[in-house]
Amino acid sequence: MLAGGVGAARFLRGLSQRTDPRRLAVIGNTGDDEEFFGLHVSPDLDTVLYTLAGRADPVRGWGVAGETFHALAALDALGAPVWFRLGDRDLATHLVRTTALRAGRPLSRVTADLARAHGLRATLLPMTDDRVRTFVHTERGRLPFQDYLVRRRARGRVRRIEIAGAARARPAPGVLAALHRADGIVLAPSNPFVSIGPILAVPAIRRALAARRAPAAAITPLVGGRALKGPLHRMLRALGHEVSPRGVARLYRGLVDVFVLDRVDARFAPAIAALGMRPVVTDTIMRSPAHAARLAGVVLRALHDERRR
Amino acid sequence: MLAGGVGAARFLRGLSQRTDPRRLAVIGNTGDDEEFFGLHVSPDLDTVLYTLAGRADPVRGWGVAGETFHALAALDALGAPVWFRLGDRDLATHLVRTTALRAGRPLSRVTADLARAHGLRATLLPMTDDRVRTFVHTERGRLPFQDYLVRRRARGRVRRIEIAGAARARPAPGVLAALHRADGIVLAPSNPFVSIGPILAVPAIRRALAARRAPAAAITPLVGGRALKGPLHRMLRALGHEVSPRGVARLYRGLVDVFVLDRVDARFAPAIAALGMRPVVTDTIMRSPAHAARLAGVVLRALHDERRR
Repeated sequence: MLAGGVGAARFLRGLSQRTDPRRLAVIGNTGDDEEFFGLHVSPDLDTVLYTLAGRADPVRGWGVAGETFHALAALDALGAPVWFRLGDRDLATHLVRTTALRAGRPLSRVTADLARAHGLRATLLPMTDDRVRTFVHTERGRLPFQDYLVRRRARGRVRRIEIAGAARARPAPGVLAALHRADGIVLAPSNPFVSIGPILAVPAIRRALAARRAPAAAITPLVGGRALKGPLHRMLRALGHEVSPRGVARLYRGLVDVFVLDRVDARFAPAIAALGMRPVVTDTIMRSPAHAARLAGVVLRALHDERRR
Repeated sequence: MLAGGVGAARFLRGLSQRTDPRRLAVIGNTGDDEEFFGLHVSPDLDTVLYTLAGRADPVRGWGVAGETFHALAALDALGAPVWFRLGDRDLATHLVRTTALRAGRPLSRVTADLARAHGLRATLLPMTDDRVRTFVHTERGRLPFQDYLVRRRARGRVRRIEIAGAARARPAPGVLAALHRADGIVLAPSNPFVSIGPILAVPAIRRALAARRAPAAAITPLVGGRALKGPLHRMLRALGHEVSPRGVARLYRGLVDVFVLDRVDARFAPAIAALGMRPVVTDTIMRSPAHAARLAGVVLRALHDERRR
């Protein structure tokens, strides 16, 4: 599974009920990694990490359940910028990661260490050990992704998404093997520009996906013209794409065999078929882990059917 | 005032009741600074900082009152070493300090920033902006100070104290001016080897104290042959010194005019006078802020008397 943050995590809560986690490998976006107070924060990897560990906060969608923010409140009192909500327990992850990275350990090894420490049975891989950073160009200039999304709450008209460093980035160890060995590949219901996009911007990953042996399915992050979370619909419009599942599906042309869209968007099914993808229409809104598991079942079945074709 | 950690903090709780804090400058030991998870921790400066801010934990003697340790518990769960007790609120101090130091800001400026953010009216100065580190040589080898004191609980016979980097260290901006302008100088009731010792090991500070214009007083950290906290009595013995106020006073010969010792050690007063210091015998155990204030009053009076001689 190629994963961004919150949408991917929701789907994973279902998928991990329907698959043996030991057969699950998640390739996480690192384009929105950022440094805060000298600490290397990997928001998407951590969201997946906490989700697979069963420790994610079910309401917020990010961070650890039962989290406290005493360090952040103290930082605020010291006049430090606190727009990125670092929790006390979450800080431990960033401290351990940063210490290991500074000692020269690559992010993929650090991520595997964290996964092990959290008791994960699934494999969690950063898309790359190289430095890739997403920037959003708006009329206010070139903003690092977290600055755009969290600090400025995704305000401003998006002119361009830049995935800096991606062209030279190599997949992290294990990524190509995971894609090669997979029975099925899932593109999570995450933002195609800033969550899945950076993963696909790593040339060898895109090539591996284009030359895939196993079937691949993408799940729409857009339902009825809106993303459930985040600024996707505005990004699609601003960047000149149709604000619909078809607009998203076009971005994945040649990379997926199945496109899962919501019942409310069923009218787009023929258009998606015309893109060379099999449309699967179902309920995609994951109101609960049970909904997510049902959706995961639909996706796994579609991949299974695709293999038998 | 030349200050170590806990003993100095207790005395400061009294001193700040008896002096205008705007006339108080504290020169803090940085020999026991240490890095944990890449964060620069200055335990003695922080103990003084939190004390002067009225935020120190009155029971533990270190850290912030009402502190929580959620980040530390999470670090522990990740298998990271947690023998140094970093609290959640305390982490904010280290994050801010480390970020500023990495940006090239000297420790003295960072300390002034922290003092301002905490609303301090007194001046808090690190002894130096240069890197000075205390090592304790025991039969187990050369141990960084926190490793010796906290991690190994001061076990093992001390062979030598090494203040690495002190010979080349320059006093931080403001330190010599504070000593020069002072009406009186106090050596806090801190360990003379590892708390006051590193400050005096900075050559220009020792010279300034030897050439002082204002009278200086030292307060014994040893009462009835024991330090109230820490391994001082064992250090004195192991390093071949008398385990008594006289043993401590000898270490300050030529640097102080007044030596304050406890009533239970009154018999050492003549021996201290023989060292060229005026002995002041009083109750030195600071069971409460009121006791500390009374002791501060005694010390201030002795310095006042000394000026009139």
